[in-house]
Amino acid sequence: MKKMQINKAFTLIEPGPVVLVTTTDGKKNNVMTISWTMVMDFTPILAITTGPWNHSFAALRKSKECVISIPTVDMIDKVIGVGTCSGADTDKFGKFKLTPVKARHVKAPLIKECLANIECKVVDIVKKYNIVVLEGIAAYFDTSGKEKRTVHAVGDGTFIVDGRKLSRKKMMWSKIPAGP
Amino acid sequence: MKKMQINKAFTLIEPGPVVLVTTTDGKKNNVMTISWTMVMDFTPILAITTGPWNHSFAALRKSKECVISIPTVDMIDKVIGVGTCSGADTDKFGKFKLTPVKARHVKAPLIKECLANIECKVVDIVKKYNIVVLEGIAAYFDTSGKEKRTVHAVGDGTFIVDGRKLSRKKMMWSKIPAGP
Repeated sequence: MKKMQINKAFTLIEPGPVVLVTTTDGKKNNVMTISWTMVMDFTPILAITTGPWNHSFAALRKSKECVISIPTVDMIDKVIGVGTCSGADTDKFGKFKLTPVKARHVKAPLIKECLANIECKVVDIVKKYNIVVLEGIAAYFDTSGKEKRTVHAVGDGTFIVDGRKLSRKKMMWSKIPAGP
Repeated sequence: MKKMQINKAFTLIEPGPVVLVTTTDGKKNNVMTISWTMVMDFTPILAITTGPWNHSFAALRKSKECVISIPTVDMIDKVIGVGTCSGADTDKFGKFKLTPVKARHVKAPLIKECLANIECKVVDIVKKYNIVVLEGIAAYFDTSGKEKRTVHAVGDGTFIVDGRKLSRKKMMWSKIPAGP
């Protein structure tokens, strides 16, 4: 995993991929699958939403830290597995053969198998909507893997895989906050 | 445009496509390009974020209504055009040849050329973060067009086009809130 500039980390979330969010309660690592994410600025400040029923939410609230990991399409069945069981009774890292890697600034682990990882601090929780406001403080990108395509949840049990990439950099040159 | 069940409209936003948001100040229609969106529940409650510098934001705040329109990949240059000029001095519907269609429940227009449209009411604004909380109240899907692929902004001037679709409905059957 190679460190990437933190002010480019929003480009990992902006396209809207399904992500994994890791937490730790100090004893046990946990991980959840989330599709409800939003970039809020280029710092990056990121929003995720989940509910108090969620086992990871307690660890998020208490530890005020997490890692957002971006899985690729070849991990789809692990991603769905993680999203359809609970850390309350399952060691998800063990069950889905995800390898935790020590992060630098937070206690929650990076996931070795993922394309990218963003270490995040919880800066606020908008209680009315259970919006967790995160600040990304370090980001890593795996340049070794061949598979770079992420997946986008539709929400009906289907997923859209990344297709081709279009560049409109010239057209947008004056509006691009994070260049190539 | 065919009406779709409102409790399935979140499936238009969950994959994270670039969207157009139309507003009206009572005299003039306006439209902006947004990539910072988030599903918050299946009603659907949706979040978008923009800033007070944004010309559409004033109309959103005042009218408390908008339409979220989902463009397809063949509209990419219009989408970028809309996103890189201001309604303060430009009639964007005219300039980008977008056809406004009367909505049923809001004064902001649907966009004929788009794949789908969601009529929305502003239910709240989280001022600290300029998060506009929307409730989708009616949704439409254009079944006539051949092009169904949407685009996902990376944020660096590149865009990812929808690729192939994977189904994991069987694997997720117990977790699917909106069936096929």
